[in-house]
Amino acid sequence: MSHAAYPWERPLGATPVDDGRVEFRVWAARGRERGVAVRVRGEDHPLEPEGYDIYAARLPALHGDDYEFVLDLHAQEGGRALPDPCSRWQPDGLRGPSRVLDTRRFEWTARRAGINPPGLVLYELHVGTFTPQGTFDAAIEHLPGLRELGVTAIEVMPIAEFPGRRGWGYDGVYLSAAQSSYGGPDGFQRLVDAAHAAGLAVVLDVVYNHLGASGVQAMEAYGPYFTSKHETFWGKSINYDDADCDPVRSWVLQSAEGWIRDFRVDGLRLDAIHAIHDESAHPILQVLCERVHALDHRALVIAESGQNDPRVIRPAREGGLGHDAVWADDFHHALRVLVTGEREGYYEEFGAVADLGKAFKRPFVHDGQYSSFRRRRFGAPARDRRPEQFVVFDQNHDQVGNRAFGDRLPAPARRLAAFCTLLSPFVPMLFMGEEYGEDAPFLFFSDHIDEEIAVATREGRRREFAAFTAFAAQEIPDPQDEETFRRSQLTRLPDPGVEALYRRLLEIRRALPAGGADEVRYGDDPDGRWLRVGRGAFALACNFGGAAIEVPVEASELVLATHDAVRLDDGGVLLPGLAGALVR
Amino acid sequence: MSHAAYPWERPLGATPVDDGRVEFRVWAARGRERGVAVRVRGEDHPLEPEGYDIYAARLPALHGDDYEFVLDLHAQEGGRALPDPCSRWQPDGLRGPSRVLDTRRFEWTARRAGINPPGLVLYELHVGTFTPQGTFDAAIEHLPGLRELGVTAIEVMPIAEFPGRRGWGYDGVYLSAAQSSYGGPDGFQRLVDAAHAAGLAVVLDVVYNHLGASGVQAMEAYGPYFTSKHETFWGKSINYDDADCDPVRSWVLQSAEGWIRDFRVDGLRLDAIHAIHDESAHPILQVLCERVHALDHRALVIAESGQNDPRVIRPAREGGLGHDAVWADDFHHALRVLVTGEREGYYEEFGAVADLGKAFKRPFVHDGQYSSFRRRRFGAPARDRRPEQFVVFDQNHDQVGNRAFGDRLPAPARRLAAFCTLLSPFVPMLFMGEEYGEDAPFLFFSDHIDEEIAVATREGRRREFAAFTAFAAQEIPDPQDEETFRRSQLTRLPDPGVEALYRRLLEIRRALPAGGADEVRYGDDPDGRWLRVGRGAFALACNFGGAAIEVPVEASELVLATHDAVRLDDGGVLLPGLAGALVR
Repeated sequence: MSHAAYPWERPLGATPVDDGRVEFRVWAARGRERGVAVRVRGEDHPLEPEGYDIYAARLPALHGDDYEFVLDLHAQEGGRALPDPCSRWQPDGLRGPSRVLDTRRFEWTARRAGINPPGLVLYELHVGTFTPQGTFDAAIEHLPGLRELGVTAIEVMPIAEFPGRRGWGYDGVYLSAAQSSYGGPDGFQRLVDAAHAAGLAVVLDVVYNHLGASGVQAMEAYGPYFTSKHETFWGKSINYDDADCDPVRSWVLQSAEGWIRDFRVDGLRLDAIHAIHDESAHPILQVLCERVHALDHRALVIAESGQNDPRVIRPAREGGLGHDAVWADDFHHALRVLVTGEREGYYEEFGAVADLGKAFKRPFVHDGQYSSFRRRRFGAPARDRRPEQFVVFDQNHDQVGNRAFGDRLPAPARRLAAFCTLLSPFVPMLFMGEEYGEDAPFLFFSDHIDEEIAVATREGRRREFAAFTAFAAQEIPDPQDEETFRRSQLTRLPDPGVEALYRRLLEIRRALPAGGADEVRYGDDPDGRWLRVGRGAFALACNFGGAAIEVPVEASELVLATHDAVRLDDGGVLLPGLAGALVR
Repeated sequence: MSHAAYPWERPLGATPVDDGRVEFRVWAARGRERGVAVRVRGEDHPLEPEGYDIYAARLPALHGDDYEFVLDLHAQEGGRALPDPCSRWQPDGLRGPSRVLDTRRFEWTARRAGINPPGLVLYELHVGTFTPQGTFDAAIEHLPGLRELGVTAIEVMPIAEFPGRRGWGYDGVYLSAAQSSYGGPDGFQRLVDAAHAAGLAVVLDVVYNHLGASGVQAMEAYGPYFTSKHETFWGKSINYDDADCDPVRSWVLQSAEGWIRDFRVDGLRLDAIHAIHDESAHPILQVLCERVHALDHRALVIAESGQNDPRVIRPAREGGLGHDAVWADDFHHALRVLVTGEREGYYEEFGAVADLGKAFKRPFVHDGQYSSFRRRRFGAPARDRRPEQFVVFDQNHDQVGNRAFGDRLPAPARRLAAFCTLLSPFVPMLFMGEEYGEDAPFLFFSDHIDEEIAVATREGRRREFAAFTAFAAQEIPDPQDEETFRRSQLTRLPDPGVEALYRRLLEIRRALPAGGADEVRYGDDPDGRWLRVGRGAFALACNFGGAAIEVPVEASELVLATHDAVRLDDGGVLLPGLAGALVR
């Protein structure tokens, strides 16, 4: 039997195949003894076994028909009807029926944007708080402005159907169903098409490392989607390498393929791949890249990995996972600590200007040396990887939203932070609103539909921050309170100076030479904390101290400055506190 | 700080440094607050912190001095004296003191054998049952005979100090201390030297995937040697990638280096590497190979891996772990099922002649297809790897000893099994005694010193085999009974026909061309189950049926036959049941 012939490799879920017929296919390792069926328009149609616990049938049905799979059809107490694990549409949320989706009905008006990594500028946005309406459609009007600013791709926080109407999206359950409260799959197609029309690519954040707790029971009714072989921070580990893992792998792989093929997404951002455990000879993370690239060789796979491991972005022939790019948190931490002075938690081991200097070369500051936060040597050198394989940022949903009060980077730190990030040799990512100095927080919010999970989420949040005595007296915002969500919506009140700076930084960025940083020099003593980074004929000069200093440069032109007070002299550039200048 | 300067990289344990002085060094992440000392000749000497919870001192001491480390030296109730985790000598077993060992005192008489993988013929031996005395010294007299037979390396089952006086050795605790009941480190040096003098290399079986339960408490007193991040079949997972893992990694790496450098072992066989979990950017299994090869580029690292994953034996530049060779259980299973008809447990999915035919090309029969035993797709193709990177066998300590009654391959199956194994293109490994048709079983035996573990081992063994109804009425041998051990000792009563066949097979093996199998043909129907494998000008012909058949070959010479009744005809070779012939 050729590998492609395993029945789990065929389309799972509900796939319209020809005029008025839909192919239904489900993996049911459990609940199959007394028959497996699909319920369409109230009628149960038994499915036929294809082997390996896969059940399927082609039946009369149309786009828009609601359906559920029925396990143990002939059980005395009646079968158990459940949503399709591979559902592409959950119009009534997690607990409602699935709905047949024919993605071919959408009339695309624009071509794919195409992504050229050296020119990539990402913009992370959360659909629910990006506009007052919180929908895919409402986001559309803002896209041309982003393109005009210099953004080349939006990165959409997870949209896989999650509990309730509000949430960050990392509790998603139906991996292939665009969130109903955002406007469902049709709405997402419209957003992608509009982005392409505006000249923007779309990267979608997908969560394959765990499943939202609200969906675990409904999934486990079908089979062992989870394994106790490995431990994850967020709960049960998805079964990628234990018995019966192949249909689970197909569930994920087909979801990834569907976003690329049917929703024309230009890339995927894989959430926390360090929590995806797979010790098999065919790691799911490598196979996923191969499958995505087979559909579209220009599609990007961007990993969030907490391991500082260059193997993630090495090609498979060098034993890598073949991802196109990886998030580089160390660049953020090195930068943030310099511009804010914070030293709590994982910031404890940053603070030296040398760290940021190193990060400008390759952003793994920990590339093998001891990490006091982790109490072990951490990471490996990534000198063999290209700069455009690293995504850097000075803010993102986690670094803002996982603070007790979801506060963005303090205003005095913003200009210098953006200067370093946007003029770095890496792929920069903006967090929605930072481009005009948004002051609204991005809080942690949820809308859990299971009381037990709602309480655990609320209490977990409080407990997490109770450790910080500074917050003990204050009230940690309640994630379940709709007001917490409302407060996180963008106000769109601009700081004109910041807005102009971002525009100028993104413009200048395009004039900088490709390739990594050249010479890196710095000072880190009480008289001055400065950094100078060469990029071809250009040099970045930064002052991380509070008082004005002169940073030594040999340059004849002040190309760009974060502040009006910056002056170029013979042999140096005079920078006020927390300021930067590009010279040549 | 350069990586080599981390204090855990310095020699751990007791290292004689110069005339009359010993450097003591220990990692004590626990029990350090009230002082860490070494007790030598009844006197406590405080150790000085070197950072990262490493404590050390150079003190007057000699080879042969007993010592213990003392944790919480100034505790009111008195410090806690424990053996050295890196002990190289435990003359009184697991619970006795450690003893200073100066390996430089041994006067080596012979040079290393040097290993040439294409010429490698391994011989697995268990020191305790190889001779009536069960010691390193007693084994020596049998070495010249093995070399003369055609064996080129002995593979010594684990000798790291384990509980009691009898055991397979996979319960070892002190990784670097040669088992006291076998004769201790001096005895092991004598064995290695004698092997080299006889022209044999020595491969040592080392267990880095778990620790014998009897030692867990004594180790954990010092620090987190274990982690709950991963699950292993045998208990707590060794901490290779969690907080504080670096000194744990050094404990293992220095042990591996010590066997190679100080005991002049020619290679290591790593037990069950699929149970070594390490998700860091520097996998311990890769680092271990680098360190071993840095000491001696010809030293072999041979992995036992249950994943059929060719990455284990790919070089690091191709993203592999860089091991020289890997065990290939599939070859055994495919062969065993054909010659015995057994189909229990993991044998269930073997039985086709095609499986063995495939295994002759590359021995991963499962190289990506579905394994019904594991209920998942399993393995990956290894076509890019050389044949001498796979170790094959028709018997080994597990395949014999993990049977309820430890019975060796049935006599009628032995000749054909040896024929296939020894004439395969892979590295063959014999299990002690099979070369002359030994009939003594190799039972599971132990000598646990902790009553709880003894009871659990005995009952676990009974429970394991109670599932097989055929055995329900019979008594499963008690592993703790010394008689079980005694019954497993070699009788050395030879079957002269078998002995002659092995000698001839190993002789002919050297005449076969290097490289993999050429044409593979087979029949698998009621009229005949036969296999023909081309190796250059030679062809192997096998009959797996019970009745005589003619296997089609075009050959003019019958080079070797397993049985006298074999006849070469025009166009075929006539083979009785379970027989093989090499023709050309």
